[in-house]
Amino acid sequence: MVKNKLRNIKLVIEYDGTNYCGWQTQKGQITVQETITKVLSDICGHKITLHGASRTDSKVHSQAQVANFLTKSRLTGYQFLQALNDHLPDDIVIRKAEEVRRSFHAQFDAKSKTYRYIILNSHIPCALDRKFCYFFPFPLKRDAEDAMKKAVRYLIGRHNFRAFATKSSQKENCYRKIYSIKITRNKNYIYIDIKGSGFLYNMVRTIVGTLLQVGQGKIKPQDIKDILKSQDRKKAGPTVPAKGLCLLKVEYADTSK
Amino acid sequence: MVKNKLRNIKLVIEYDGTNYCGWQTQKGQITVQETITKVLSDICGHKITLHGASRTDSKVHSQAQVANFLTKSRLTGYQFLQALNDHLPDDIVIRKAEEVRRSFHAQFDAKSKTYRYIILNSHIPCALDRKFCYFFPFPLKRDAEDAMKKAVRYLIGRHNFRAFATKSSQKENCYRKIYSIKITRNKNYIYIDIKGSGFLYNMVRTIVGTLLQVGQGKIKPQDIKDILKSQDRKKAGPTVPAKGLCLLKVEYADTSK
Repeated sequence: MVKNKLRNIKLVIEYDGTNYCGWQTQKGQITVQETITKVLSDICGHKITLHGASRTDSKVHSQAQVANFLTKSRLTGYQFLQALNDHLPDDIVIRKAEEVRRSFHAQFDAKSKTYRYIILNSHIPCALDRKFCYFFPFPLKRDAEDAMKKAVRYLIGRHNFRAFATKSSQKENCYRKIYSIKITRNKNYIYIDIKGSGFLYNMVRTIVGTLLQVGQGKIKPQDIKDILKSQDRKKAGPTVPAKGLCLLKVEYADTSK
Repeated sequence: MVKNKLRNIKLVIEYDGTNYCGWQTQKGQITVQETITKVLSDICGHKITLHGASRTDSKVHSQAQVANFLTKSRLTGYQFLQALNDHLPDDIVIRKAEEVRRSFHAQFDAKSKTYRYIILNSHIPCALDRKFCYFFPFPLKRDAEDAMKKAVRYLIGRHNFRAFATKSSQKENCYRKIYSIKITRNKNYIYIDIKGSGFLYNMVRTIVGTLLQVGQGKIKPQDIKDILKSQDRKKAGPTVPAKGLCLLKVEYADTSK
C-alpha cells in the first residue's frame, strides 16, 4: 500500500518569461506550466498535474514561482531538482524541490505574493537589461518619488480594485488586500515591490502605470482614493508592459510534511 | 571648404553579444560593427568606416565599447545618438555620441581596457542571468578567494602573456601590462574585473579559467610565475565561456576636440 501512496512535491521555480505565453497551459501555445509538466510526467512515469501559485502572464518573469504535484515516484526532492534541471530548457530553473504534506496546494494555500516591477527611467534604453525592465524615457517630476509614496498609502489595505483590473466581470469579487508597496530608486532604475493577498488580472501592472502618472504629475496622490471608489478602469493609468514584471516570492503559513 | 570638412564622431556602445559573432565584421556573419556601420552609412548618406577599441569575441557583451568614424554629416552628437538608437536592433544601444578631435582613434589611442567576468558558483543554474554569467557548479576551496587574490599578484605588471593566449604566433609580441585585477564575491556570484593596456586573444578568459583552478586548489598561487615563464598555453587553465565576459570601460588620455 505504501508503495503506491501519492507524495506531494513542492517546487520553487525561476524563469525568464520572454519566450513563454505565461505560466498557464493554453492550447497551441508554449507555456511554463506545460513545459515543466511534460518533463515531470516523463520523470515520474505517469501523467502529473502541476498547480502553480500564480498565473503569470506572457513575458512575465519569476524568481520564485511555487508549484506542487502529486506523484507515485519515489525520487527524493534533490533527485527531482537534478532531473528537472537536466531536462528543462535553460530559461526555466528549479531552485528547490521538497516533499510536503499531502494537503498542501501551491495556489490555494498561498498567503501572499510579492511582485517586483522594474522601470528604466532614462532617455537612453538599455541593451543588457532590455527584457527585464520597462524603458520609460518620459521625465518624472522632481518630487516624483515622494508623490508616488504618498499615492501608495491609499492602495495599502483591503479595497475593491476593480478600477485596476482588466476585463473583470461584474460578478467577480474584486476585493484584494495589499500589504505593502515599496518604491526604491537606484540611479536610472525604479523598483516597485508590491506584496498582496492576491491580484486581479493586470492589477500590478495597472497600479505601476498609475503610480508613474502620479510621478509625472498627471494624477495627484489623493486621486487614488477616487479611482478606487469609481471602480472604473478608465480612471486608472495604463497597464505597463509585462516584461518589467517579476514574481519575487510566494509565502505560505506552513508547508511542513 | 568647411562644408565638406570631415568630422570625427566618438560613440560609446552597449550591447548584448548573445546574437552576434563578436564585434568585427566577418563575411557571412552578423557582427556588431557591421550592424552599426550599415545604419550609420544610411544616416550619414555615405559609406563610413567604424573603428572599435576592442574586438570583442562572439557572445561577449559590452557596457561601453568605444568606436569612432569620420563623416561629412552635420548632425550633432545628440542627433547621431537618437538616429542610431531609433534604427539599431534593441540589443545594441548607443550611450554617448560626441564630436572629438580629428586625430582621435578609438583603438590606437586607448590607454586601458577593463573587462568584467561573472561566475555563478552554485549547484543550481540561473534562468534570468544565464546569458551573462558562467555557471560553475564545481566546489571552490574555503580559502579560494584568498588564493585567487594571491595568484593575481603574479599577473599584475608587464609580462609576456603567451601562456594565456590562444593561437599566438611565434612572431607576435605577447607583452602586455595588467594594471589591476579585482575579485569580489556577492552570494553565489564571483566578479573578476581586469584592467590592462590591452589583451591577447582569449587572454582574459584564460586568466579567469586559471584563477578558477587556483580557487579549486588545482594550481597554487605561486605556480602562476612558472606558467608565465613557460610561455606554454598548456600550462594555464581552460578558456572559460565567452558569455560571462563584458567590456566595462575603455580609457583615453584625452579626447577633447
